[in-house]
Amino acid sequence: MNALTDRLAGALVLPQPYVLFLGDTTIAGFAKTAFGLKDWAPDKCVGELRLPGATVTTGLDALTAAEAHARGARALVIGVANLGGVIPANWRASLIEALEAGLDLIAGMHMRLTDIPELAEAAHRLGRQLIDVRVPPPHIPVGTGRKRSGKRLLTVGTDCALGKKYTALALHRAFIARGIDSDFRASGQTGIMIAGGGIAMDAVVSDFEAGAAELLSPDAAASHWDVIEGQGALTHPAYAAVSLGLLHGSQPDVFVVCHEPGRTGMLGTAGYTLTSVEEIVELTLLLGRRTNPAIRCGGFAFNTSALDEVAATELMARESARLGLPVADPVRGGPAFDALVDSCLA
Amino acid sequence: MNALTDRLAGALVLPQPYVLFLGDTTIAGFAKTAFGLKDWAPDKCVGELRLPGATVTTGLDALTAAEAHARGARALVIGVANLGGVIPANWRASLIEALEAGLDLIAGMHMRLTDIPELAEAAHRLGRQLIDVRVPPPHIPVGTGRKRSGKRLLTVGTDCALGKKYTALALHRAFIARGIDSDFRASGQTGIMIAGGGIAMDAVVSDFEAGAAELLSPDAAASHWDVIEGQGALTHPAYAAVSLGLLHGSQPDVFVVCHEPGRTGMLGTAGYTLTSVEEIVELTLLLGRRTNPAIRCGGFAFNTSALDEVAATELMARESARLGLPVADPVRGGPAFDALVDSCLA
Repeated sequence: MNALTDRLAGALVLPQPYVLFLGDTTIAGFAKTAFGLKDWAPDKCVGELRLPGATVTTGLDALTAAEAHARGARALVIGVANLGGVIPANWRASLIEALEAGLDLIAGMHMRLTDIPELAEAAHRLGRQLIDVRVPPPHIPVGTGRKRSGKRLLTVGTDCALGKKYTALALHRAFIARGIDSDFRASGQTGIMIAGGGIAMDAVVSDFEAGAAELLSPDAAASHWDVIEGQGALTHPAYAAVSLGLLHGSQPDVFVVCHEPGRTGMLGTAGYTLTSVEEIVELTLLLGRRTNPAIRCGGFAFNTSALDEVAATELMARESARLGLPVADPVRGGPAFDALVDSCLA
Repeated sequence: MNALTDRLAGALVLPQPYVLFLGDTTIAGFAKTAFGLKDWAPDKCVGELRLPGATVTTGLDALTAAEAHARGARALVIGVANLGGVIPANWRASLIEALEAGLDLIAGMHMRLTDIPELAEAAHRLGRQLIDVRVPPPHIPVGTGRKRSGKRLLTVGTDCALGKKYTALALHRAFIARGIDSDFRASGQTGIMIAGGGIAMDAVVSDFEAGAAELLSPDAAASHWDVIEGQGALTHPAYAAVSLGLLHGSQPDVFVVCHEPGRTGMLGTAGYTLTSVEEIVELTLLLGRRTNPAIRCGGFAFNTSALDEVAATELMARESARLGLPVADPVRGGPAFDALVDSCLA
């Protein structure tokens, strides 16, 4: 991902490495961004910064802003959310201290850093950046559908929030482990922080949705893979526009369908049930062929966190036999996941 | 459309009636918005306002801003575009004079009225509105897919810019002529000015695209029809996200496929050819069923402006026999269009 700065002209590029800000949080679930960064980008995290009262830790070294800067950090990432997505007043002195220590600030919350006058004033005074990763870059062009060089994989899903980011990261990591030139292309806020760049696709104006996806995975060497984080679902009554623009603009050669066995109702809808994985395969092929006639399904990534190991393995073997393609849980890994990687690269 | 203000809480509602501003234009093609308003909303236009040098006229009375206000006008609509979509410096004194005469300003150009400091200052000083119809309303909710009451028709297309707005307006007018309670729901800038409200769907952030469409055609009486202006095409590599969000959120009972016979290449794309009207029917049924399982195709609206009357009539009769549904050109009207209206209402 070192070439990101060169390749992604027009997309967001974040200053790195990071120090992870945990505020005064006492609830681990609120620090998902910090844990995600520690798990997926440990080489980009020099430590963590906690306020008095915090009980949650990533296990990284506790640092002051000045110590983090001395260790090479270039940005402080707000790695914790709270109810309502606001930045509480008692965090602000620490955030200003980070700016004074020479760090830029990065956040992906609903409340924008740039909308907090005392942070905006301090950043302006010190010549530092306030980066809201949910804000898409300016000047996104309209899509053209022009075929780009290089290979692309997109994770799609039967619903939101069931593992599309995780699956893309795991496949990217497996590609790298096999010596394949690969970039993870992030389309959501946590993914963008992990990758150090990307575009928050759900925040792009719809007229430019496919154009943003074209920008996100630019021309590359013929043997290079972009592994693109999917969003939403083509069958989601609220978010299908995001999913279709991302599919058209990504023009994937291969897609992997992400699914959570046992989930029946679609998130945030008025009683919509999930469509089957086969229907998602058919729909993705039908719509994806418009910009890449050679699109194919590489297999399935199941989120089996609700099952024990034996039940999960049995279910995935049965579904793989039925569907005729590998089914794996990227968190569990193992031979099934190797088979999924083989199938994607076949 | 008088009930628009009551029904469309959250969507844009424009002050009416209008005076149409033509600037100093000498090219009729640049005044499409003014001509569209004169043709489709004559009861909302008290006259026109031209600058010295203008040679184009809508045929409406030439008025000063003060005269227009005295005749009841509540807004001046910039009814002329020019290359680049800017508002030239030599129009500004007239626009400020209109604000001083008590008129709000409405525009749908790329350059926003609110971005011109002298207009922003004058509007603020005088307590007047500057309304850019390309700017969606704030606080659009995420879609839910909840089934709404009333009936809905959506125009879809094989490409952009081939008659979806015109077809929706003509069908709405025909419904009214038959005594049917109907609203035209505008999804683009000219349509919004004609209707006096609506949402510029291509300017909505993609996460809220379906939600905006839900807002655009709210619950209504069981026998009421919303006739919704379509956007883009489900097969357009740049704009399909707009089309799908609008389809899902509109949950139409009936759709009409708009097409221009003879057009082969898709607008603004890298060599994409149009898909057939049958493919658009199949795709719209497949995707539209997600939010309205009873969706059906009412027929086809052909833009036959490139053909003479005999050739157009023959082509449409042949295509109607082949497709098994009415095919009509709304501009030509006649029995074929009556048959299309019958089919939509069947």
